[in-house]
Amino acid sequence: MCLPPVVFRGTIVATVKLWSDDEVAASPVVKAVFEDIRATRKSDFVNNFWRALANQPAVLERTWASVKQVMVAPGALDPLTKELVYIAVSTVNSCSYCVHSHTAAARAKGMTDEQYAEFLAVIGMAAETNTLANAMQIPVDREFMLE
Amino acid sequence: MCLPPVVFRGTIVATVKLWSDDEVAASPVVKAVFEDIRATRKSDFVNNFWRALANQPAVLERTWASVKQVMVAPGALDPLTKELVYIAVSTVNSCSYCVHSHTAAARAKGMTDEQYAEFLAVIGMAAETNTLANAMQIPVDREFMLE
Amino acid sequence: MCLPPVVFRGTIVATVKLWSDDEVAASPVVKAVFEDIRATRKSDFVNNFWRALANQPAVLERTWASVKQVMVAPGALDPLTKELVYIAVSTVNSCSYCVHSHTAAARAKGMTDEQYAEFLAVIGMAAETNTLANAMQIPVDREFMLE
Amino acid sequence: MCLPPVVFRGTIVATVKLWSDDEVAASPVVKAVFEDIRATRKSDFVNNFWRALANQPAVLERTWASVKQVMVAPGALDPLTKELVYIAVSTVNSCSYCVHSHTAAARAKGMTDEQYAEFLAVIGMAAETNTLANAMQIPVDREFMLE
Amino acid sequence: MCLPPVVFRGTIVATVKLWSDDEVAASPVVKAVFEDIRATRKSDFVNNFWRALANQPAVLERTWASVKQVMVAPGALDPLTKELVYIAVSTVNSCSYCVHSHTAAARAKGMTDEQYAEFLAVIGMAAETNTLANAMQIPVDREFMLE
Amino acid sequence: MCLPPVVFRGTIVATVKLWSDDEVAASPVVKAVFEDIRATRKSDFVNNFWRALANQPAVLERTWASVKQVMVAPGALDPLTKELVYIAVSTVNSCSYCVHSHTAAARAKGMTDEQYAEFLAVIGMAAETNTLANAMQIPVDREFMLE
Repeated sequence: MCLPPVVFRGTIVATVKLWSDDEVAASPVVKAVFEDIRATRKSDFVNNFWRALANQPAVLERTWASVKQVMVAPGALDPLTKELVYIAVSTVNSCSYCVHSHTAAARAKGMTDEQYAEFLAVIGMAAETNTLANAMQIPVDREFMLE
Repeated sequence: MCLPPVVFRGTIVATVKLWSDDEVAASPVVKAVFEDIRATRKSDFVNNFWRALANQPAVLERTWASVKQVMVAPGALDPLTKELVYIAVSTVNSCSYCVHSHTAAARAKGMTDEQYAEFLAVIGMAAETNTLANAMQIPVDREFMLE
Repeated sequence: MCLPPVVFRGTIVATVKLWSDDEVAASPVVKAVFEDIRATRKSDFVNNFWRALANQPAVLERTWASVKQVMVAPGALDPLTKELVYIAVSTVNSCSYCVHSHTAAARAKGMTDEQYAEFLAVIGMAAETNTLANAMQIPVDREFMLE
Repeated sequence: MCLPPVVFRGTIVATVKLWSDDEVAASPVVKAVFEDIRATRKSDFVNNFWRALANQPAVLERTWASVKQVMVAPGALDPLTKELVYIAVSTVNSCSYCVHSHTAAARAKGMTDEQYAEFLAVIGMAAETNTLANAMQIPVDREFMLE
Repeated sequence: MCLPPVVFRGTIVATVKLWSDDEVAASPVVKAVFEDIRATRKSDFVNNFWRALANQPAVLERTWASVKQVMVAPGALDPLTKELVYIAVSTVNSCSYCVHSHTAAARAKGMTDEQYAEFLAVIGMAAETNTLANAMQIPVDREFMLE
Repeated sequence: MCLPPVVFRGTIVATVKLWSDDEVAASPVVKAVFEDIRATRKSDFVNNFWRALANQPAVLERTWASVKQVMVAPGALDPLTKELVYIAVSTVNSCSYCVHSHTAAARAKGMTDEQYAEFLAVIGMAAETNTLANAMQIPVDREFMLE
């Protein structure tokens, strides 16, 4: 016997509708963003994050413009480093969606198992020492301050 | 003119004593760890984090051994990438001490202003999208899952 | 083929029993709180939060009394504003249950799609600037301080 | 009597230089943003957040454009409600700078002591119930889900 | 030599006035709570948390009543265990005030240096494994679920 | 009709493979750790956390060594107190896996329903007062500081 799909945790449904491709096609603003996402990423797949944001066209446009500028455009950090930093933030913010999507992105950008293992060691270590420093309220050394 | 001392926040003192070099010298366990820190880092400076942990010799030894293995030993990620990931975690955990010490460490390892600017853009972007994804409880795309 | 219900994520089951109406009826203290919840909300539906708290009658009583005083009684802020603030806190605390229940409550209190879109923009913006300010450890301007 | 400077926490200095008005005047990009901030807010005062971001002109421009769109432009939520939501997020993210600046902003936008008292009650209540719901891993009621 | 006052962080002042004993004496509601705090704790000292909450008499009354019931009344957990749990929550929430006040309270209730050292080891360990489990999104074992 | 298992939330699958006993048997390093876990706990059951960490043998070895030293070896705090502190940290870090596993561990170590109820009251109270103290940026009393 199985439970009907509606029974599973609320989190399998979002607080907003996820837009289908047909619904996207009917909204010029959303359609334009989705086309740019597909063109920029050279892939037809548009993930749920954007399908949820489609309910807020102004937020969708601004967020995609920022993501494109920050994560896609070439910059001073290589793409994999940026994904690792992104996963780190997402993990501490306990964003399950973001951890999954950016871990997948890091793998797509070439992250090896050795790199992932070392990344995990670093974020675990950081969380441990963060907690110790916050618990003991350690004052910052003068040597670390920008003069 | 100066404000009287009572005005300053409690956080200027730690919840534990910060060990001076004389106190360190009097404890064989702590002394050994401090000597290894100095030898490993090729520097006489030992920062307050270790001077606070000195009150808990077992935690001090284990933590330094882990930090040495994770952050100092050569691995699959370059040292600057690991520092950036460390700052990211520390920022989200709101650890003032750790943000200062690891931003200083990143600079010491060659982080340029351009890299820091891009790093800031990434963590800001990540925090924003984390919050949006958590607020809308977006379900993870099947495409992101490990088969 | 389907997996049997017990297979799905642990989070579909709580760490405590969720009390059924029959179990509630058998405990005078819990029964009284549930009757007050139903009377106050003018609805028969009592959500899982209270069915879980029923295992801790003293916590149940105190928490309901506080919620009633803070969220239900008329005050200086309108009910929708309070729900938006509640969702904001719940999102940053990554409380999936609370995000769902208070987003539903905000909708029930008249939140429009435009208001929700703007709310999402604000919490995303706040999270981004929080992260930037914490990463750069920006000192508070004297102008913001209460004299 | 004053404590010597070495006693004060590292957090009194930022990890980046705070730009003076002279430095701002020497950079066309930063100058343009600062002039827009002053014109938009009808005030000469530009707070430290922007003086720190000035080190990252691209982040400065994008962040100010977003803040202007989200927080300044008229929308579906009134300005005070947006400030309250902003303080809520900043408090949970433990951003001292942001709590101070947005509490000051809320007061400037007319927040009364009664409203602040009620706001505090709501965020305290939310944090308490978030923690209870996360500790008991309460499953989301079907009634809260978007059909 | 001292630094000029402008150098110090905003966090040295609160967002609200801290009530003096004279101000407390002039408000019957606040006065009653303060007298109960002093009588319950058998001490004249009333810490800043209550002096800040005095601005919100309804929140003050409710919060003190809860603290008295939860932390002061005898219960199923011994007082030191409750303080340790309180510090743990406060540390992860990065509440500097709460870490200081409850670490002092734990010491006043007999916490030894050995206990504090072990407590620090536990919270550091927990933070590390939390981060690893969240990063890898590990599914909960069926064995851990309440049947 | 049921959805096929792959459809449920991403979180039912990890970002890494969970090692089966056969896979463990084929890796000497992992096998040794698993044997020590089984011997130390006097139980054949090895939970998913270790099966996920098996992908990173160095992290697995170091983490188990730390857990064994901190949580298993006799110390200054009794085992149940340590589990309660562990759950507290895990709850605030919103680690669903850790909340489930350590709540189960606390029960296995004798936690009564009364103790759990009181524990819940404490963490809820702490989260509430943390939020109030952070929102009002209350300065630490000199009385709480270590002289």
